[in-house]
Amino acid sequence: MHTVYGMSASGNCYKLQLLLAQLGQPYAWVEVDILNGESRQAEFLAKNPNGRVPLLELEDGRCLPESNAILCYLAEGSDYSPSDPWHRAQMLQWMFFEQYSHEPYIAVARFISRFLPADHPRRAELPRLLEHGHQALAVMEQHLADRIFFADSGYSLADIALFAYTQNAHEAGFDLSAYRALRSWLDRVRSQPGFVAQQA
Amino acid sequence: MHTVYGMSASGNCYKLQLLLAQLGQPYAWVEVDILNGESRQAEFLAKNPNGRVPLLELEDGRCLPESNAILCYLAEGSDYSPSDPWHRAQMLQWMFFEQYSHEPYIAVARFISRFLPADHPRRAELPRLLEHGHQALAVMEQHLADRIFFADSGYSLADIALFAYTQNAHEAGFDLSAYRALRSWLDRVRSQPGFVAQQA
Repeated sequence: MHTVYGMSASGNCYKLQLLLAQLGQPYAWVEVDILNGESRQAEFLAKNPNGRVPLLELEDGRCLPESNAILCYLAEGSDYSPSDPWHRAQMLQWMFFEQYSHEPYIAVARFISRFLPADHPRRAELPRLLEHGHQALAVMEQHLADRIFFADSGYSLADIALFAYTQNAHEAGFDLSAYRALRSWLDRVRSQPGFVAQQA
Repeated sequence: MHTVYGMSASGNCYKLQLLLAQLGQPYAWVEVDILNGESRQAEFLAKNPNGRVPLLELEDGRCLPESNAILCYLAEGSDYSPSDPWHRAQMLQWMFFEQYSHEPYIAVARFISRFLPADHPRRAELPRLLEHGHQALAVMEQHLADRIFFADSGYSLADIALFAYTQNAHEAGFDLSAYRALRSWLDRVRSQPGFVAQQA
């Protein structure tokens, strides 16, 4: 059985909880409190020198970091990772988009808004994060205007990756009311077989 | 024949030039001057609504953005993308690391250092970018201390992705002299069959 090291409040970690539930694959969960530096302690750094969660540990001790790489590994051969090369390329396109153009703004804005005190100096970053986050949401809205899911083949890891921090973007101060296609897509993801909501 | 839209001075675009040379695959190149806003004009945004290069265009007009997704698509079935699921997961791990923990610091620091005037206000970002960039380089140095390439299977897309902005990190103000394993790895990449240097 795989072990996942993660923090329940993290969208990157929730991605794995959602996929593993949909795959019906049991796993052990080890909660890592990154807010109290647990991902920077020697024991964890020995497993992931980059000091980040989530981290997948196989039974034989091999470790794999990077949420979207873990999704790809776990979904090998399943319907969540299309076998057609073009559809798989589309899936990866949106997973790299998520980590480069989406998460660094929306997830970071949520972290600052939700976990840092009201007078914390990092709150000065919020206007810029909101501006760039809305740019990412607008690109998604345009794409979804005439599509059901991000890859043309249907629901895939790209949807799981982008759902994680889009569903709680309101916690980061994003108003999604103007994004009609995006809100319909969020509902479609929530209605997928095996869907589980984030618990924290 | 594929068309690549790119800017020659961009490391993300150079990744594709390197892989296509190693695959021996001919392609058309369309230079896009992102410094003069050409990637934000309507004609280009119709091909990539996210307004970034590189962009791959197939003969039938289908378009694929995101440098690392394009690498995966082009390398399907070749030795540059391992067929073993664990090795492919390692490759993707380092490609996501590159886009999240490496490029946003080292490529952005290079852009500011090389392309913005000496009195530009964005130069104030450089100390933070250098600090985070060195953290990424240290993770790479540790990984390479007892390894030849990033994935255990050998030279792969992970090396191509990470080589692009590590090879010119000095242009961003990074001193690589303390990174011995990293410098040896740079030389190993340069000695790979079909290697081509970045032209700009």
